[in-house]
Amino acid sequence: MNISDSAPKIFSYQFIVEPFHVDFTGHVNLSHICDYMLYAAESHAEILGCGLEELLTHNLSWFLTRAVIEIDKYPKAYEKGKVETWVEQTNRLFSIRNIDFFDEDNKRFGGARLMWALVDLTTHTPADLSTLEGLSQYSFPERKSAVAKPAKVPDISAAASQATPQKLYDVAYSDIDINQHFNSVKYIEKIVDMFSLDDYRTSQIERLEINYAAEAKFGATLALRKEVTQNPECWAVSMRDNTSAETICRARVSWKKRND
Amino acid sequence: MNISDSAPKIFSYQFIVEPFHVDFTGHVNLSHICDYMLYAAESHAEILGCGLEELLTHNLSWFLTRAVIEIDKYPKAYEKGKVETWVEQTNRLFSIRNIDFFDEDNKRFGGARLMWALVDLTTHTPADLSTLEGLSQYSFPERKSAVAKPAKVPDISAAASQATPQKLYDVAYSDIDINQHFNSVKYIEKIVDMFSLDDYRTSQIERLEINYAAEAKFGATLALRKEVTQNPECWAVSMRDNTSAETICRARVSWKKRND
Repeated sequence: MNISDSAPKIFSYQFIVEPFHVDFTGHVNLSHICDYMLYAAESHAEILGCGLEELLTHNLSWFLTRAVIEIDKYPKAYEKGKVETWVEQTNRLFSIRNIDFFDEDNKRFGGARLMWALVDLTTHTPADLSTLEGLSQYSFPERKSAVAKPAKVPDISAAASQATPQKLYDVAYSDIDINQHFNSVKYIEKIVDMFSLDDYRTSQIERLEINYAAEAKFGATLALRKEVTQNPECWAVSMRDNTSAETICRARVSWKKRND
Repeated sequence: MNISDSAPKIFSYQFIVEPFHVDFTGHVNLSHICDYMLYAAESHAEILGCGLEELLTHNLSWFLTRAVIEIDKYPKAYEKGKVETWVEQTNRLFSIRNIDFFDEDNKRFGGARLMWALVDLTTHTPADLSTLEGLSQYSFPERKSAVAKPAKVPDISAAASQATPQKLYDVAYSDIDINQHFNSVKYIEKIVDMFSLDDYRTSQIERLEINYAAEAKFGATLALRKEVTQNPECWAVSMRDNTSAETICRARVSWKKRND
């Protein structure tokens, strides 16, 4: 599989905040910011010649393994902005893609770092990223990200794992993407939904780290649990299959007071 | 409140099907088609001078009471299309807005008819639409819709109403819109999620009719039940508050074999 040799190293995607994508405070829901970000990543991959459609013809797919998203200020309904994305580095196992978010005045309001693996859909095992010949030339480590590298998110405590889940969720048709996987953004939607309107009334999510561990299957019931960490503004979230107790994802959600 | 006297009678909105908005068959999820449609309706209302933001300053809001959506062929990822929308008629109680959907080749692939009421947010009662002075001049009954007028959707049978719900859903943060209401599209997402991947594998929703009855409150548990009608390809769906048994919405979902 050959990667284009004329694609730009930085891809830019413009968004507008649709009024149906904001929460009750009038600010865009974090899951929709993740939608913009993944759309930009996918569009850039498509231009590079390794988008989802192309990969599927080789029985391969991208799999998001870790993500960190930091948002300083959430845009409101009808506000425009852009996502800039570039590949920081690629090795045989992972590709690290960075994101910067800018508002209408070209002021950076957040960023993200995403760790992608390639999966062989026949064997359901990791595939060697060096099969995407020429992808490494798109690495652009010169542009630095202000966001820390995606790290391992620790699990909630054993005691919290045993407690009754705060939420149960049945994986439904709308959660399953073209890959027949639980849509990456849906994991994030379920995590932000672990918090109440009161939490969002005066505060906002400043940082969300997520480790994707396993696929949530159609029809499975997910058990979601949260636990405050030593930092009172930081919560650990666990999503497991309620029957097998297999971990689907782990997340850490940090909050700060709203600044508008 | 004065309505603009220079806005177009027909408003057009272009969409592109994002790869994250398609289902496992590669076709856009109906709830995202509804998103395009409501965005077009809201954008037209904004140009007319009676968009959500303007209404909120008068403590008023639009409330979707009934909708019928008919889709003949679902676009796939990356396909473009447009929504055309116009107001068919307005009286003191309701405004009927029509929608036509067109694909990239300008071929109509579906349509919708939406019945809106105006709600006074202070008293939570219907407001008189004639307060939107000048709105009636935008009625355009000359352009006919191929979709039947939104009618009353009958409830499921008493026996089916008593049965154990097929689904329970807890209303979460992401479901609550800027109006502090359950987002109109989320009702539709929960309805399409009443069906399994097997249902969608060979068939598609041809027609969805919905009567919005009451607001789903944050934290409430919704009980969803479905029942096949006399027509084996048509299902009645009921969404109730699981505690009070109050009807939140009723829907009728008609299916046909996939044509691509």
